[in-house]
Amino acid sequence: MSLLSVTVKKARYVGVQAAQFNSYCTLKLQNVKSTTVTVKGANPCWEQDFLFETNDVNTGLLIEVWSKGMIWDRALGYNYIPLTEVQYSNEEGSCQQWLALEAELVMRDGEVVGTKNPTGHSLLVDCRFELPFVSED
Amino acid sequence: MSLLSVTVKKARYVGVQAAQFNSYCTLKLQNVKSTTVTVKGANPCWEQDFLFETNDVNTGLLIEVWSKGMIWDRALGYNYIPLTEVQYSNEEGSCQQWLALEAELVMRDGEVVGTKNPTGHSLLVDCRFELPFVSED
Repeated sequence: MSLLSVTVKKARYVGVQAAQFNSYCTLKLQNVKSTTVTVKGANPCWEQDFLFETNDVNTGLLIEVWSKGMIWDRALGYNYIPLTEVQYSNEEGSCQQWLALEAELVMRDGEVVGTKNPTGHSLLVDCRFELPFVSED
Repeated sequence: MSLLSVTVKKARYVGVQAAQFNSYCTLKLQNVKSTTVTVKGANPCWEQDFLFETNDVNTGLLIEVWSKGMIWDRALGYNYIPLTEVQYSNEEGSCQQWLALEAELVMRDGEVVGTKNPTGHSLLVDCRFELPFVSED
């Protein structure tokens, strides 16, 4: 069983409407989901940490970014991180990267394998596997 | 442009843990999403109405049911309603049906086209297209 540590740090949105966005992120891994709080503006800052357990590295983390509305929430973009690309590290911030938020999911054999069509929006995420604890005794 | 009216009425969950569920539903149509409140128990009742606009009947409504957790929300099941199967009616409750909540999405060419593997949980939904208003003058 591996522990996936994800910190959703902040986003940069483009376009004239971006300042009005009230946005949040959802993180999905297999059949579980975590959600950030909702933050206003074109440069929202969350700095929220999430932990997931998994024993299947052939899957991936699906990140969805949504703009909250009165009636509907609107998708601002998606990014998919295959777990095979995630590094092992216990150092916070060591694996952070700006992800392009894309408009569409790419599927293969019924599963998400990536995303396409950049929206211009981007999201800063730190995503890493926690190293197993090793006693120094 | 058609108006899709969806009422999420109630659910019936099976299994010994069902009484502990705090569950909510999300409705996704193209790139917009609406969410119910969270209700506790094995027989949650929402009776919440949602409206969606669409001009593409070749898509469908994806319903996800989630059990809220402290750290993660867990998927209880999915159902997909192709818009081609939705009737036109202005009568509330005339199109209600118990939907099987299923464990997996079925995809074709990168899009959800259905669900499979029933979980035993079910959801009562009223889903219909609003008839255009016709003046009686």
